Amino acid sequence: MRIATVEYNGKTLPVRVADDGTTVTPLAGVDSVQALLEGGTTPRPAETPAIPIEQVRLLAPIPVPRRNIMCLGLNYADHAEESMAAKGRDWKLPEAPVVFTKATTSVTGPGAAVVVDPKVTEQLDWEVELGVVIGRGGRHIPQERALEHVFGYTVVNDLSARDLQFRHKQFFLGKSMDGSCPMGPWITTADAVPDPQALRLTCRVNGELKQDGHTGQMVFSIAETIATLSRVMTLQPGDVIATGTPAGVGFARKPPEYLWPGDVVECEIEGLGTLRNPMVGPTQ
Amino acid sequence: MRIATVEYNGKTLPVRVADDGTTVTPLAGVDSVQALLEGGTTPRPAETPAIPIEQVRLLAPIPVPRRNIMCLGLNYADHAEESMAAKGRDWKLPEAPVVFTKATTSVTGPGAAVVVDPKVTEQLDWEVELGVVIGRGGRHIPQERALEHVFGYTVVNDLSARDLQFRHKQFFLGKSMDGSCPMGPWITTADAVPDPQALRLTCRVNGELKQDGHTGQMVFSIAETIATLSRVMTLQPGDVIATGTPAGVGFARKPPEYLWPGDVVECEIEGLGTLRNPMVGPTQ
Repeated sequence: MRIATVEYNGKTLPVRVADDGTTVTPLAGVDSVQALLEGGTTPRPAETPAIPIEQVRLLAPIPVPRRNIMCLGLNYADHAEESMAAKGRDWKLPEAPVVFTKATTSVTGPGAAVVVDPKVTEQLDWEVELGVVIGRGGRHIPQERALEHVFGYTVVNDLSARDLQFRHKQFFLGKSMDGSCPMGPWITTADAVPDPQALRLTCRVNGELKQDGHTGQMVFSIAETIATLSRVMTLQPGDVIATGTPAGVGFARKPPEYLWPGDVVECEIEGLGTLRNPMVGPTQ
Repeated sequence: MRIATVEYNGKTLPVRVADDGTTVTPLAGVDSVQALLEGGTTPRPAETPAIPIEQVRLLAPIPVPRRNIMCLGLNYADHAEESMAAKGRDWKLPEAPVVFTKATTSVTGPGAAVVVDPKVTEQLDWEVELGVVIGRGGRHIPQERALEHVFGYTVVNDLSARDLQFRHKQFFLGKSMDGSCPMGPWITTADAVPDPQALRLTCRVNGELKQDGHTGQMVFSIAETIATLSRVMTLQPGDVIATGTPAGVGFARKPPEYLWPGDVVECEIEGLGTLRNPMVGPTQ
């Protein structure tokens, strides 16, 4: 099942997306995807007519998360290698998950324009990632039961301002520009994803393939990551964990490549859909 | 004026703390400090009898923040020096604010017991910090107007699991244990703090003075920090920025010192009150 948040007639609604993708139907009994996750019930479409998908605007599946998006750094070996090489360092795999966050205000939806302001960053980079949406929260979740806590999966573009990321040492600020966390186009529920560690993920910029990886390449699996996080802190319904990006990012290319107004980034994960965002200049 | 959140007769209430500290009075027209900040109005006590402070339990002034607490690392020169020395590295001042976050679930109140679980960390450390509570949000806030966006100030103990912090490279996880962000005892409104860069801040463990600094020693001032953050991201009412800690933390001592069940940590900032938390063992 695919669960989305849409804007329709000036309202923000949680919906089910029909299997053929042509219509959406509002969910019964809840006014947001966050409320659905907190309620812990199975999503149920309301007894109302389906709405043609052309009549709605897809938003991020959780447009205003209750807290920052958690993200893994260097969680694909080939990306860890390219990153360290670009910085002129010897590389090795991280010994433990490298976790940072993106501000809630960075979240934006599929299709939304992302402002590239050269006064903020001159090194905006792409990162396609598998986003894991927590359903049932918990502490001390054992790895072998961790996937039971996943409500579903989505596509995240962990847009990164490399200049800010490296200047400020800790990653948070360079990952938290307004609009720097496109997410969507919807959440595919876990039951419809037989093996989340067997998905191809790609990123195209202006149609050109830049990243082409596979979630089986993760250094720390989804289950291991959930177990590690929940050993330290209580996970909550609606938490989103972006699980890292494969090789092919812009800053590690020779010469480096960055995003500018006019560019279009398409992040696609097998079975989960395509997240497409145009870059635009600042309006002022 | 001092604004707190208290538990009283099973309810969670925003209150004004009387100047003599003996009573609290619920605020009129709002059901939380977060709602007060979002409404942007001046806090106004309700026309109800004052409640003796012994009859309430003080909670964190914002018990469930809308997003992660933002924190500055290495923002006092003497602490930057001791940290780098403890890691055997040459030290220099950070060239830009080092910003990381603590999970919302780490927030806890004055007096609350903090669980020290050796299965989670064996290196729990103290960090007294001045917490800045944002009132009016905004983007691109100029430094010279930044303090106009501050609602008030509070005391934060940025409890840090050094083993996790260093093992996971990025600071988030080692700073996000449940209960690792004691905050309070209240927010002192900005009008009552003539110069937030002229406050002594101390941390005592079991009565022994461990940290003794002054907010005038910050590498990046409060105003500069707000300007830097808001250049990148939209600040929101209720955002909390912990502005870094002075020298004297446990891991930089010779030999290193950490917190264990039975220890009591008292963080005090001149004019803002004392935040006292006992450490306890896990119950299971």
